[in-house]
Amino acid sequence: MNVQSEITKERPMSKTNAGRFFEDYSVGQVIRHAVPRTVSGGERALYHALYPARHALYSSDFFAQSCGLPSSPIDDLAAFHVVFGKTVPDVSLNAVANLGYAEGRWLAPVYPGDTLRSESEVIGLKQNSNGKTGVVWVRTRGINQNDTVVMEYVRWVMVRKRDVDAPAPETVVPELSKVVPVEDLVIPKGLDFTDYDFELAGEPHRWGDYTVGETIDHVDGVTIEEAEHMMATRLWQNTAKVHFDATFRPDGQRLIYGGHVISMARALSFNGLANAQMIVGLNGGAHANPCFSGDTVRAWSEVLDKAETDMSGVGAVRLRLVATKAAGSFELKGEDGKYLPHVLLDLDYWALMPT
Amino acid sequence: MNVQSEITKERPMSKTNAGRFFEDYSVGQVIRHAVPRTVSGGERALYHALYPARHALYSSDFFAQSCGLPSSPIDDLAAFHVVFGKTVPDVSLNAVANLGYAEGRWLAPVYPGDTLRSESEVIGLKQNSNGKTGVVWVRTRGINQNDTVVMEYVRWVMVRKRDVDAPAPETVVPELSKVVPVEDLVIPKGLDFTDYDFELAGEPHRWGDYTVGETIDHVDGVTIEEAEHMMATRLWQNTAKVHFDATFRPDGQRLIYGGHVISMARALSFNGLANAQMIVGLNGGAHANPCFSGDTVRAWSEVLDKAETDMSGVGAVRLRLVATKAAGSFELKGEDGKYLPHVLLDLDYWALMPT
Amino acid sequence: MNVQSEITKERPMSKTNAGRFFEDYSVGQVIRHAVPRTVSGGERALYHALYPARHALYSSDFFAQSCGLPSSPIDDLAAFHVVFGKTVPDVSLNAVANLGYAEGRWLAPVYPGDTLRSESEVIGLKQNSNGKTGVVWVRTRGINQNDTVVMEYVRWVMVRKRDVDAPAPETVVPELSKVVPVEDLVIPKGLDFTDYDFELAGEPHRWGDYTVGETIDHVDGVTIEEAEHMMATRLWQNTAKVHFDATFRPDGQRLIYGGHVISMARALSFNGLANAQMIVGLNGGAHANPCFSGDTVRAWSEVLDKAETDMSGVGAVRLRLVATKAAGSFELKGEDGKYLPHVLLDLDYWALMPT
Repeated sequence: MNVQSEITKERPMSKTNAGRFFEDYSVGQVIRHAVPRTVSGGERALYHALYPARHALYSSDFFAQSCGLPSSPIDDLAAFHVVFGKTVPDVSLNAVANLGYAEGRWLAPVYPGDTLRSESEVIGLKQNSNGKTGVVWVRTRGINQNDTVVMEYVRWVMVRKRDVDAPAPETVVPELSKVVPVEDLVIPKGLDFTDYDFELAGEPHRWGDYTVGETIDHVDGVTIEEAEHMMATRLWQNTAKVHFDATFRPDGQRLIYGGHVISMARALSFNGLANAQMIVGLNGGAHANPCFSGDTVRAWSEVLDKAETDMSGVGAVRLRLVATKAAGSFELKGEDGKYLPHVLLDLDYWALMPT
Repeated sequence: MNVQSEITKERPMSKTNAGRFFEDYSVGQVIRHAVPRTVSGGERALYHALYPARHALYSSDFFAQSCGLPSSPIDDLAAFHVVFGKTVPDVSLNAVANLGYAEGRWLAPVYPGDTLRSESEVIGLKQNSNGKTGVVWVRTRGINQNDTVVMEYVRWVMVRKRDVDAPAPETVVPELSKVVPVEDLVIPKGLDFTDYDFELAGEPHRWGDYTVGETIDHVDGVTIEEAEHMMATRLWQNTAKVHFDATFRPDGQRLIYGGHVISMARALSFNGLANAQMIVGLNGGAHANPCFSGDTVRAWSEVLDKAETDMSGVGAVRLRLVATKAAGSFELKGEDGKYLPHVLLDLDYWALMPT
Repeated sequence: MNVQSEITKERPMSKTNAGRFFEDYSVGQVIRHAVPRTVSGGERALYHALYPARHALYSSDFFAQSCGLPSSPIDDLAAFHVVFGKTVPDVSLNAVANLGYAEGRWLAPVYPGDTLRSESEVIGLKQNSNGKTGVVWVRTRGINQNDTVVMEYVRWVMVRKRDVDAPAPETVVPELSKVVPVEDLVIPKGLDFTDYDFELAGEPHRWGDYTVGETIDHVDGVTIEEAEHMMATRLWQNTAKVHFDATFRPDGQRLIYGGHVISMARALSFNGLANAQMIVGLNGGAHANPCFSGDTVRAWSEVLDKAETDMSGVGAVRLRLVATKAAGSFELKGEDGKYLPHVLLDLDYWALMPT
């Protein structure tokens, strides 16, 4: 044993980020998250290599231009992941559970060359009765190089206390909309589906063809690989140990980033929802059960609502997107109201379709 | 069991693409395939991460410029995959077998920033004697944002009938060239190998150094991983279930996209054919046996023919490219005329070399 | 067995590169390595998908501009890998061991759009006493499209002789600096950390906060996957068989490219060294033990030295970066002076930090 290793033992972790604990948050606090990111065609190519993403607006400059946009943006969920990933070291490094999402809105498309950073405001705190953990609500904003907010969403997580004896903060539980009102959805400037090419988009079904209550089995399945989910998760600079380190959990499994399942399910939903082009609102979402390498992910959707918009030829559709690891099952919850074990994700979002 | 799941059971697949069956095709029919794609440096970087691709013309803008091109194009086979991938949902979703290729020509290089779409014309139909399947011949064209056809090829597949009792169509079997005539090969405008830098390209062997009948063992091997072939196949927006879903086949294996083997073998052929820079013609090809994760792919080539061209310093060489999963074996077929079990691919193409 | 295979047996390897052997090198010889490469945002995105790389200067154009650079360069180690990869077919195809690095300097940042090529000069030769192998020292330079040298380093490898009876060359052992002197480090033109944003960079620790002798445990671990290390290694056009072909070694394992471990460890070092933004000097390095798929790589650093520079707000820090495959162990060598079996890498480099 040499001198160097003796030194190491004295102060091995002095400068590393141990993450925030429950008592480190206060309502009104604004956290500027680290590591801004410039995105390019590289991020887009990787997104399309990691997910079977095929929505034409995010695949072709020409198609996007025919819909009134300057060029093809980075996929809506890729923008979400970039914004989300930056929050992990500050919000969820010591999280016990990711409890929910609400009031998510995509406010401006993100294009190759844009640089994104993230900020979160703490909008709620509630210590749990066990005194060991608490719930933290944050409203996160993704901001580009022109200081334009490109997206925002509320997320709440259960976080451990560093010191169980630390006093509980005043409880503040934010009032959150169950659904983003249609009038609050932001439709990208210039978006126009008047000349929409259904053949190039891949399906003939327009907004008018969907009925509330209708469900769609997206049929295809993808078996998940370790290399793929880790590459995706790293690309978004999400640093949570549990996704990368097979020695972290007692069972030796790497837990797959919930966002990987969201993107996989959304991409699979192309088959039946090819024209639900752009996600503009995130009403809520639950990661119902963990996903691991080897699981075969499938998806189905339910039309929850429909609404008109004031843009040419653009309709809004509210969709439930469910990811499962069982084929042919469209049951969501058991008689006890809990998600069935094969359900991975239950997401509620607004998308824009040609009318 | 809740109300929602009851609804699902009534109409779970109403809007998804079940693919075309044999009786859905008619000679003369033109299918515009969905999901145009803009390619960028991201696709190129991924191609070079997924395959040991090293041909200098597709690696360096500077090298490409020294050969008379404006910049380095996307790899010839990457362009092929983009065009091919779009045809899968319309042509081969219900295919039983991929029978062959012919009359393939690369007509214009594809550059980062280009947007490709695909169209196929049905040029032949022949119902099989069993009445359950038929052969469909299509001529597919890849078209860029300026409506320039960048490549075309004929492919034929065996497709299932939806209804065994549907009447057989009139048999039309197209006459196809066994080999693309040299005079029909399209050499990219401006291509000039006069100042070709053999040292930077990686090998000293020029067109004149190859003799018809010569074979080259490309020596190197690559062991195939699930994550890699899936990423490649997704990048080309190829949606065939069998490549992604481990539950699809009774043996639990994911069948590897034949194009993955083509690209792997072509990239391996750099070692011995570093100067066979650009593929310009596809004379034929057979996916002799399926490839699975864990197989170690090797390649060898045979010089089938040579021809001069009217461009400065540019010669054409016709090559057989064979991919195998056994080291050191250069046998192709058994005494029964069938491919030996270790042979994965037998491809016949034209490439351009410096004379 | 057909005629073709008979031909193959006669001359299967006539045109492939068998690599150079010890007697093929002579002091003063300059080797221009093959396959120049144009890098783009695709290489950057892949680098960030394959490694948990988060240094802000290499992630955000905006951040890089606030530090006086025109835009965000390609990661320093990505530039190294591009330059290094090209040398493999000429320098290490028949190498028995990669013995060391010295006198490495990054001389100019590499930006998307740049084209790199590599040249190596043989600066030393020493036949081993067994007569079967010898040590070759090369100084390698990476050069961009403007003939600017962007980096250089010395590397020495043990190479097999083709013919054991070939005469030994005159022994020339170059004198190499143990450490690149601070005054020889090249700080990118315009680099200015005066307005450095520590919050966006991810940590508050500045140059003045680090003390010589201090060690930092970077805490996080990443379990290595075959698909990832192969994609990385291919991206740098490194062709060494042992990384790709599971049939190459008797144990059926693919040896992981040492550079993959370097990049993984450097990326992990963000946690504690987020402000050690740019690597500018490589003093030395040892790949202490081989790394295989399934290993969980961790890292710790030791501050070896500190120095001021004449650029605004820019300090230099000399760091030892150690990669291990065991958690919580900061021992490096045993009592016999040999690296302990869990140590993968021991690297010695200079980085630039805000003062």
